[in-house]
Amino acid sequence: MNKVNTKTLKGFKELLPAEQMAFNKMLETIRKTYELYGFIPLDTPVLERAEALLAKAGGETEQQIYQFTKGKTDYAMRFDLTVPLARFVAEHERELTFPFRRYAIGKVYRGERPQAGRLREFHQCDIDIIGKGDLALSADAELPNIISSIFTKILPNNTKFTIRINNRKILNGLFEWLNIDGVAAMRILDKLDKIGIDGISKELSEIGVEQNKIDSIISFSEITGTNEEILGQLKAMTIDNKAFQDGVTELQQVSSSMTQIDLSIARGLAYYTGTVYETTLDQYPQVGSICSGGRYEDLAGTYTNSLLPGVGISIGLSRLFDQLKTLELLELGASTPTKVLILSIDEDVKAKLASELRDNGIPTETQALNKLDKQLKYANKLGIPKVIIIGNDEVAKKQYSLKDMVTGEQQTLTKVDILSNLLL
Amino acid sequence: MNKVNTKTLKGFKELLPAEQMAFNKMLETIRKTYELYGFIPLDTPVLERAEALLAKAGGETEQQIYQFTKGKTDYAMRFDLTVPLARFVAEHERELTFPFRRYAIGKVYRGERPQAGRLREFHQCDIDIIGKGDLALSADAELPNIISSIFTKILPNNTKFTIRINNRKILNGLFEWLNIDGVAAMRILDKLDKIGIDGISKELSEIGVEQNKIDSIISFSEITGTNEEILGQLKAMTIDNKAFQDGVTELQQVSSSMTQIDLSIARGLAYYTGTVYETTLDQYPQVGSICSGGRYEDLAGTYTNSLLPGVGISIGLSRLFDQLKTLELLELGASTPTKVLILSIDEDVKAKLASELRDNGIPTETQALNKLDKQLKYANKLGIPKVIIIGNDEVAKKQYSLKDMVTGEQQTLTKVDILSNLLL
Repeated sequence: MNKVNTKTLKGFKELLPAEQMAFNKMLETIRKTYELYGFIPLDTPVLERAEALLAKAGGETEQQIYQFTKGKTDYAMRFDLTVPLARFVAEHERELTFPFRRYAIGKVYRGERPQAGRLREFHQCDIDIIGKGDLALSADAELPNIISSIFTKILPNNTKFTIRINNRKILNGLFEWLNIDGVAAMRILDKLDKIGIDGISKELSEIGVEQNKIDSIISFSEITGTNEEILGQLKAMTIDNKAFQDGVTELQQVSSSMTQIDLSIARGLAYYTGTVYETTLDQYPQVGSICSGGRYEDLAGTYTNSLLPGVGISIGLSRLFDQLKTLELLELGASTPTKVLILSIDEDVKAKLASELRDNGIPTETQALNKLDKQLKYANKLGIPKVIIIGNDEVAKKQYSLKDMVTGEQQTLTKVDILSNLLL
Repeated sequence: MNKVNTKTLKGFKELLPAEQMAFNKMLETIRKTYELYGFIPLDTPVLERAEALLAKAGGETEQQIYQFTKGKTDYAMRFDLTVPLARFVAEHERELTFPFRRYAIGKVYRGERPQAGRLREFHQCDIDIIGKGDLALSADAELPNIISSIFTKILPNNTKFTIRINNRKILNGLFEWLNIDGVAAMRILDKLDKIGIDGISKELSEIGVEQNKIDSIISFSEITGTNEEILGQLKAMTIDNKAFQDGVTELQQVSSSMTQIDLSIARGLAYYTGTVYETTLDQYPQVGSICSGGRYEDLAGTYTNSLLPGVGISIGLSRLFDQLKTLELLELGASTPTKVLILSIDEDVKAKLASELRDNGIPTETQALNKLDKQLKYANKLGIPKVIIIGNDEVAKKQYSLKDMVTGEQQTLTKVDILSNLLL
């Protein structure tokens, strides 16, 4: 009989046990850290009214959305966690307390052409702080602490990362002061790495920017150094523009020892309006940003008349996990949560011990004691670290054998000693 | 300007913070308990090849599936977690260790007509134990312990539940012995509650079942009592049929003080082949089964030639949560994970204390100390239990004010005392 194809579709991944355990551990660390900083969990439907999701999409994103009609309803699958947040806050505005600190961890869907590093289903882990009417800049200053706390915990040892920040007002202000089209100029500046300063000068000149203004942009783009040095050079530019000055002041207040100011990051022209964040791996720049975000003036203008400014970041965990795997940086452990396998000839002794171990938070499996070799092989393959063996002798003496599957060492211990050994 | 409709679609729910916190707590308890019993996490894509998902669907289910085409691909959204498990095990058979104990917690999608208690997107929480070639009956006996452990923890106080078990072989054997069509007879027996014994006799007679056989079915359907009494009466029937006898033996081995044998439960004619489970709330029979499952002979025949028998259960958490809400049994707590809000005039003192609290696992929010009334109101609305106030006096004396938001009591404490107070 012909069997049905069991491979997942392109762009859709599933993990084997040891990988899934490692992935879940990272996800759980992110979740716990978000909660340690007082973010409230939120879960919105994966399927929404197409009209509601598309209201905030556009261009490339809109083409990627999975959309379909069933009955009389036009459905779309969520492509990020920000649009559903906007809709949720607009819908439940009166039931929420502001500033609303929410986290959302879930899968999102983008039907892009699959290519290296691009997934069609992936986990995002987002936090946002939403104000009503206004939102203090201290919210922007708080986020790098959270990013730092998470990546210190989830990245493999010695994987250094840098949290880069910038403020969109600075560049906006500069363009305003120079009286040139920001969108066009920005598109050219984004090519710095590719075409160099000469190439940029040439292209700016081609769209009619005067030479003295090109010089200002070039000298701006050459600003580097420590946070203090960069802030010093920005102030030294003495640019008489409010947005520029506000941007510098905000950047000064948000920057800290945890962040590196990087005037070259911009993160999406339309959406972000103030602070922007990117996070990169020092030794692996090719991975790109593993955690990005920024400040926006108004979350939900499409859905409500209330002004809802916010600031947020997103970790694309599926992509990060994939990249760490490719770089061979993933440290895989066991293929099961089980810490002890009890093999016993006595059903009651087994059940009682298993129950005590589980009450103490120790994941435990049990089996009748037979085919010992097969059982030990099972434990070994899964990476179960300890096996307790309870045979006739052990039941009579009320002592149990504890076998360490790593060293192979076997000890005969009382129940109390077994418990303290396992609780170590 | 016209604003876009922000309501979720019919059959799609989203929860407010306090509800979401309560829901997540239940989900987390289920997840942890599954892991305490050594189940391995598995996550499969929400979108699959339509061909792969539909291979195992059929009838009513197939009509409910969300299906669509994008590009050249026919997609379907998963409508349960068992079909993806079957496909996964078939695909990765050689990479897995058997018996394969897996849990899956995730959303599934069914485009049914929305009606009371029916959701189109809902969480299922499944465990299955899959053997290769065979699977010991001890697996069937293990599951009621897990069900019991979970519902003891997640149901509101004093909500009693009963885990009902049966074995499909008994009824199959009975029908075989009676030499009547099981499917038709079963359909009639399922109406017992509605049409009573007389109605059933009449309908069985109409499909041509002889009176002596009807008497056997009726006396079978009247068996009740304790597990021992039921098993005794089944044996007393002295029915000379292997399936019947096997069923009774298995039922005896799987039943325990945690389960109630209930010969009336059957759970899906085609799929389950041995033990079946249902779990009901004693005071709220109208809720129906909150956790069901059973033993199946072959998980993945559509996808592989290997024989993969298994046993599993599923908790429909979204539906249970909804029902508990309707019954006003849900105990809602705070609207935030935050346990302490620190309000401080000193940025460094605040950051240091917050960091220590978080290192001790205490979810902490911080704010500059101004607009105290507004901040206390914020804490109050969210249900943050404690507020630490650090003003000029406090910084000078290195003592902090700790306000209990429930009692209103305020104490001045050293940092050490604050920590021990909060870690209680």
